[in-house]
Amino acid sequence: MSETIFSNFPKVKFEGAASTNPLAYQYYDADRVVLGKPLREHLRFAVAYWHSFAMTGSDPFGGPTIHRPWTAAGDPIALAKLKADAAFDFFRVLDVPFYCFHDADIAPAEETLAGTLKNLHTIVDYLGEKMSSSKTKLLWGTANLFSHPRFMAGASTNPDPEVFAWCATTVKHCMDATMKLGGANYVLWGGREGYETLLNTDMKQELEQMGRFLSLVVDYKHKIGFKGQILVEPKPKEPTSHQYDFDTATVYGFLKRFGLENEVRVNLEANHATLAGHTFEHEIATAGAFGILGSLDINRGDALLGWDTDQFPNDLWSMTMSMYQVIKAGGLGVGGCNFDAKVRRQSFTAEDLVYAHVGGMDLCARSFLTAAKLIEEGEYDAILTERYAGWKSPEAQAMFNGKLSLEEIAAKAEKDAIQPQPRSGRQEKIENLLARKIYRDLQ
Amino acid sequence: MSETIFSNFPKVKFEGAASTNPLAYQYYDADRVVLGKPLREHLRFAVAYWHSFAMTGSDPFGGPTIHRPWTAAGDPIALAKLKADAAFDFFRVLDVPFYCFHDADIAPAEETLAGTLKNLHTIVDYLGEKMSSSKTKLLWGTANLFSHPRFMAGASTNPDPEVFAWCATTVKHCMDATMKLGGANYVLWGGREGYETLLNTDMKQELEQMGRFLSLVVDYKHKIGFKGQILVEPKPKEPTSHQYDFDTATVYGFLKRFGLENEVRVNLEANHATLAGHTFEHEIATAGAFGILGSLDINRGDALLGWDTDQFPNDLWSMTMSMYQVIKAGGLGVGGCNFDAKVRRQSFTAEDLVYAHVGGMDLCARSFLTAAKLIEEGEYDAILTERYAGWKSPEAQAMFNGKLSLEEIAAKAEKDAIQPQPRSGRQEKIENLLARKIYRDLQ
Amino acid sequence: MSETIFSNFPKVKFEGAASTNPLAYQYYDADRVVLGKPLREHLRFAVAYWHSFAMTGSDPFGGPTIHRPWTAAGDPIALAKLKADAAFDFFRVLDVPFYCFHDADIAPAEETLAGTLKNLHTIVDYLGEKMSSSKTKLLWGTANLFSHPRFMAGASTNPDPEVFAWCATTVKHCMDATMKLGGANYVLWGGREGYETLLNTDMKQELEQMGRFLSLVVDYKHKIGFKGQILVEPKPKEPTSHQYDFDTATVYGFLKRFGLENEVRVNLEANHATLAGHTFEHEIATAGAFGILGSLDINRGDALLGWDTDQFPNDLWSMTMSMYQVIKAGGLGVGGCNFDAKVRRQSFTAEDLVYAHVGGMDLCARSFLTAAKLIEEGEYDAILTERYAGWKSPEAQAMFNGKLSLEEIAAKAEKDAIQPQPRSGRQEKIENLLARKIYRDLQ
Amino acid sequence: MSETIFSNFPKVKFEGAASTNPLAYQYYDADRVVLGKPLREHLRFAVAYWHSFAMTGSDPFGGPTIHRPWTAAGDPIALAKLKADAAFDFFRVLDVPFYCFHDADIAPAEETLAGTLKNLHTIVDYLGEKMSSSKTKLLWGTANLFSHPRFMAGASTNPDPEVFAWCATTVKHCMDATMKLGGANYVLWGGREGYETLLNTDMKQELEQMGRFLSLVVDYKHKIGFKGQILVEPKPKEPTSHQYDFDTATVYGFLKRFGLENEVRVNLEANHATLAGHTFEHEIATAGAFGILGSLDINRGDALLGWDTDQFPNDLWSMTMSMYQVIKAGGLGVGGCNFDAKVRRQSFTAEDLVYAHVGGMDLCARSFLTAAKLIEEGEYDAILTERYAGWKSPEAQAMFNGKLSLEEIAAKAEKDAIQPQPRSGRQEKIENLLARKIYRDLQ
Repeated sequence: MSETIFSNFPKVKFEGAASTNPLAYQYYDADRVVLGKPLREHLRFAVAYWHSFAMTGSDPFGGPTIHRPWTAAGDPIALAKLKADAAFDFFRVLDVPFYCFHDADIAPAEETLAGTLKNLHTIVDYLGEKMSSSKTKLLWGTANLFSHPRFMAGASTNPDPEVFAWCATTVKHCMDATMKLGGANYVLWGGREGYETLLNTDMKQELEQMGRFLSLVVDYKHKIGFKGQILVEPKPKEPTSHQYDFDTATVYGFLKRFGLENEVRVNLEANHATLAGHTFEHEIATAGAFGILGSLDINRGDALLGWDTDQFPNDLWSMTMSMYQVIKAGGLGVGGCNFDAKVRRQSFTAEDLVYAHVGGMDLCARSFLTAAKLIEEGEYDAILTERYAGWKSPEAQAMFNGKLSLEEIAAKAEKDAIQPQPRSGRQEKIENLLARKIYRDLQ
Repeated sequence: MSETIFSNFPKVKFEGAASTNPLAYQYYDADRVVLGKPLREHLRFAVAYWHSFAMTGSDPFGGPTIHRPWTAAGDPIALAKLKADAAFDFFRVLDVPFYCFHDADIAPAEETLAGTLKNLHTIVDYLGEKMSSSKTKLLWGTANLFSHPRFMAGASTNPDPEVFAWCATTVKHCMDATMKLGGANYVLWGGREGYETLLNTDMKQELEQMGRFLSLVVDYKHKIGFKGQILVEPKPKEPTSHQYDFDTATVYGFLKRFGLENEVRVNLEANHATLAGHTFEHEIATAGAFGILGSLDINRGDALLGWDTDQFPNDLWSMTMSMYQVIKAGGLGVGGCNFDAKVRRQSFTAEDLVYAHVGGMDLCARSFLTAAKLIEEGEYDAILTERYAGWKSPEAQAMFNGKLSLEEIAAKAEKDAIQPQPRSGRQEKIENLLARKIYRDLQ
Repeated sequence: MSETIFSNFPKVKFEGAASTNPLAYQYYDADRVVLGKPLREHLRFAVAYWHSFAMTGSDPFGGPTIHRPWTAAGDPIALAKLKADAAFDFFRVLDVPFYCFHDADIAPAEETLAGTLKNLHTIVDYLGEKMSSSKTKLLWGTANLFSHPRFMAGASTNPDPEVFAWCATTVKHCMDATMKLGGANYVLWGGREGYETLLNTDMKQELEQMGRFLSLVVDYKHKIGFKGQILVEPKPKEPTSHQYDFDTATVYGFLKRFGLENEVRVNLEANHATLAGHTFEHEIATAGAFGILGSLDINRGDALLGWDTDQFPNDLWSMTMSMYQVIKAGGLGVGGCNFDAKVRRQSFTAEDLVYAHVGGMDLCARSFLTAAKLIEEGEYDAILTERYAGWKSPEAQAMFNGKLSLEEIAAKAEKDAIQPQPRSGRQEKIENLLARKIYRDLQ
Repeated sequence: MSETIFSNFPKVKFEGAASTNPLAYQYYDADRVVLGKPLREHLRFAVAYWHSFAMTGSDPFGGPTIHRPWTAAGDPIALAKLKADAAFDFFRVLDVPFYCFHDADIAPAEETLAGTLKNLHTIVDYLGEKMSSSKTKLLWGTANLFSHPRFMAGASTNPDPEVFAWCATTVKHCMDATMKLGGANYVLWGGREGYETLLNTDMKQELEQMGRFLSLVVDYKHKIGFKGQILVEPKPKEPTSHQYDFDTATVYGFLKRFGLENEVRVNLEANHATLAGHTFEHEIATAGAFGILGSLDINRGDALLGWDTDQFPNDLWSMTMSMYQVIKAGGLGVGGCNFDAKVRRQSFTAEDLVYAHVGGMDLCARSFLTAAKLIEEGEYDAILTERYAGWKSPEAQAMFNGKLSLEEIAAKAEKDAIQPQPRSGRQEKIENLLARKIYRDLQ
């Protein structure tokens, strides 16, 4: 492989919390066994091709600040390969087990469908070659069905059925590509599946289109024998005024409507959660309660701003609570932790990209280790067990399980002249305990 | 009936748009027939007992500003009757066809379950008497399962099963009362069904409890032969940090989870919609698309503030769009338009209460009349029909109906070398048309 | 002038409220005299060069949807002239009295400062030619000090003084250009004057730099004899995490700090107001109270979204209240109403641009006419006069004017045993009155 | 002193980070000397009388959950003394150096001004007695000018001058009381100084009234020789729709307008900052830049909710950054850290109150210690120094100090053909460094 902008960076190693090396992991000890398997297999970290290799630092008020060798002028296919070389060199630096991509991140589009698909497969073959000499695998692939103007009025929800057909074709090929590269999941994020104004929108029709599309995807998965998970990624409010996949609860209702709740899971993103008015841990707990937790997009938003800032995480409290909910939900399975995060516009150097990931991976690793400790120590489980203990009684179970009707419950309550007594929720005490466990050196 | 604070107000009459009488309706001509029936039967206006007769003007930063004869010291039952007298006199003034109540609004609670229930039935009987000489009927009844400290950790979702039993008992009696008074619906708003912190919450357990509770209610409805609708009212973020019935889409998923989507509908409130990040018309359209539109709570929020301000509506654009979605969804059926709105804290006089309702009813009436006109003229339907016309073709229908698999669609698209063309969404043009239709004298 | 994309559009004429011509003004009768002068001179409408001629429809999730002859490949200067030709043809269609521009909208930048300035003056000369045969004048000019990567860490607040010098140079030339073209105002919007994180920011230093910069601008204005107003445009939260010119009150404090409150006024934008948590009318009233109201940027935001959507206005209530505050503040003087609004991404046709402006101008015109009527009828003034009447008494004036000390007021109050009595704020009644006046045919 | 609800709690002691005692301080070692003086004197912790002794747990949707001996029925003065006994016993438990109060928290109001003032002075005398045998001093006093209905339309900004006079009288007596008790500051929070709707508001008149009021207060301070600081507490959006003291920048402009910027400082609250769209550290840094930092109200909001939740703090990152800005601004002087925080509604036991304060004090102490360490190590100062180093050159200083005019700067820039070069803002790297310093055991 030729020289890349990351060639000068040695592999980032675990050196422990005492390390003063800013380019070492203090907590991400990939081989450390916790809850029965190595940390690497719990977290399954992935680098996002788009943010790390395709973003230019432009925003609605300004142009690109990030210039890479592959963003210069030149043959698109050659540049795409140059980008892939750099990407895999970056994976080497981080020693990261997975990556994720959209078709548009890895291969140049052409005006025609055929040309675009041809380029996709050319680069997929190239990625296959890269992967043969790399330890980094594919966590998931996806199709970008939101950036091109043809998707401006929706992808599968477009009023024009030809756009639906374009999307179907693209997803078919992206699923083929994902399977070919051994991807563990296939993701759908409906970036334009929503509306700008109800005035020109037939919401019911569009939801039906979206349901049909997802059913087609699930059928195709089975047809080709793809063993990975199909994941839908909820997001509210951006880019359309209303996004149909608003949050986990909304996606769950949608899956139930189309009978897909056992076929499709969710890929949850921290910043999407906060835009919807939820914490990340809430979204994870909700998915856990519904049995549809699939995978995570790791980042953070800015609670004071109204858009997806996609910053690298630094909130230890929230991430620990999130990892706690992940473990309670049974872990990430074949999902993982994908850094759907981008460096700030002023952080245009290659070094900034490395620092950002090292910090993010370390925060997640630490959070997981603390969460595992909380589980192992059992103090929080005990708090819950005690709080809900009343429901273990035979009388309570009879109510809970539907053995008693409303009027039977009422009759008994009136006869017993019940008088429920207040109990403290002890929130401050529990938060103190947590603060003491989280903001400490971790053994 | 004795003198009330509303005795001096004559009945508010329809006088037409040219009227300069501030206490006349300009648009609410109850007998005007539109879309096949009188306006009165479309809108089914209701006064909310709590905001209009039980609120005192206190807020988190200050005490009561509103003092009524029935809020003074005295025998609780006598005061409750005094309140009922005033309420029915107020209904007379407005000539309003319906009212709504919580148990706690109409009857004083006692420390014991038995005492509280006894008071409830005493006052229900009194209301029955009042109704026998009034044209005002009951739109819906409900139970207040959020104000008393016993509900501080939840009602049906409480960690203490005794609270669940208390709630079941209360709802049984409130359903009985609602049926006795001929109520058209029974509503459940889960004011404390949510959590303050995930740290002390077993969300899955609580959702199961809530599902069980709703199933019990539905079973009981059938048992007693109550013909009205069971309605759940979505609300996010208040009073608990997370409310389980976040919005319409969330409630739909919940109903599907417990197999109740054909038994229960939603009671939608404008301010609850905006707190969840949606427009009122969005929530109505969503309920329409899912077939669960039940009834409306009419008010408005303050988009710049983060809580339920419950103001009387004055936004003609949004209300017209909301009524348009109501009509498209098939109308309100046995639901109605309940003014879940309260006068501002400084508006402490009886006069303020009358003005507030006259303005609100007129705004809704006008909005409905305009929406009906939009429907009758068909211009908006035509815009949608044209926009989605492509989906009428046999090829498109084959995709839509699942006759083609993903790979068949792809094969055809590649063979045809499809190239979808952009079409303007014409949002500004459509908005102009609407402005011209809305902000005009109405014939 | 050659053919433009607007050539086929005839001039939009005033046809009155009964007109069914979608490309006629129903309310904007430019020559109608109200409050002593023609509507044209009150409103001083302007088209924004950037949104109307330079925007491409791209957003953070997708590429350009709007393609114009001048956005194709070609000689930059020739394309800039083509753009100017279209712009002036568009002004003809709307019969709009003003336009506004940034340097970057009208002329292509080059890598060097010299090249960029040369292009600026070339196109300014061309605009001068265009203006000589047009009735459309320049409302204001400004410099784009936010889009180029050199401004990514700030313009006048940049940690690098060379960027400050670049900005000073650019503003000098833009002021020269504005003066040359007879501009009525010169505007500064600090798009990157703020910070991403306090961790790398010396806020005090940056505020001092910004104060110095504004002082230099004011000095230069006097030196060259520019008679127009210098205007600062407040905006919070976008694009930087914190913008120093957060809102009107913040800018007022800043001007006071640097002794510029008599030299500089504010250019207020509706969507910037709502992002800061204020209504547009609040910002106007605040500027009026401080005597710094300069000009308006007309648009609307989406209260449910957290960024500057810059939509065309359609809220008659809010715009009427805004125009009411404008009149109470003494009018816009040499300021005006600039449409800092953009068509939606799907509205990519030339027709959409025309519709958008016709609707926006009509809404503003109607709002102004209604506001003028409210002023002339005096009902609202009377409400305020009555509400504050107590302050007219000699005793109250003595308190108000500082003739009494705190202890003197206290002594008197204690002696008089004062007992203030509650009075209704009558908000609902006043809102009803307003609804009746606004949502009516306008004579 | 008689038995109180806190009698069973021993004094909370510093036991170090290794302590497993949940009722010990791990970090708040009051005597530890840092940056030249004991931690106690840096932080000057205070307990807020209102939240800790007067709040009942009621919220807009539910009644009291917190019942204390002094909230039962009885002689108001005797109950107020009982409350004071408990308060000082609580101060003993926490070993807290300060407390803060409103008149309404400590003494019962009567219908008359005279009666209310008499009660105030009775209890102030009692507090004086309590203080004579306690180490806890008064950080600040204030008047509650927002809870009683007479303030519903404003306190000093009321349309009724008699309310202004009532407020002046009350503040005079509260200042007297504060001085008598040796208070270090006197605070004004304008809870009703704002408006519900512009439609019935003369904003300019009200701002003038507010300016007069504050001037009277400052004059009185000098007259009586009160040596403490006068502090204004900014807050937006609650309880009125618009609060005049929106944020620090707004208050600064207000002080400048009335020439009070050297007489009055700000008391900043974390949750008020976030409601205004700012971080707590931003507000502190802003006050520091303007030289008006006075004191802190310690708490946290919920970024996903739209009201003042007043929770106890647990975000170590934000609090450390806040303390860092405090130190950079020169410290809190005679201000302090007042816990304007309340236990959750479910946390109704005395124990919950103790836990809440122990956790909050420890978090602040730890944050201050870490911030002091950051200052001492100088790494962050070095980052800023390097970033702004360019401004140290003579040429840059000439621009900065106004020695060069705009045209001179331009001439030089053009001559030099300047070409500013991009530099990374290194945000992620800096955040990583901080995470490593904050989330560690503290020596």
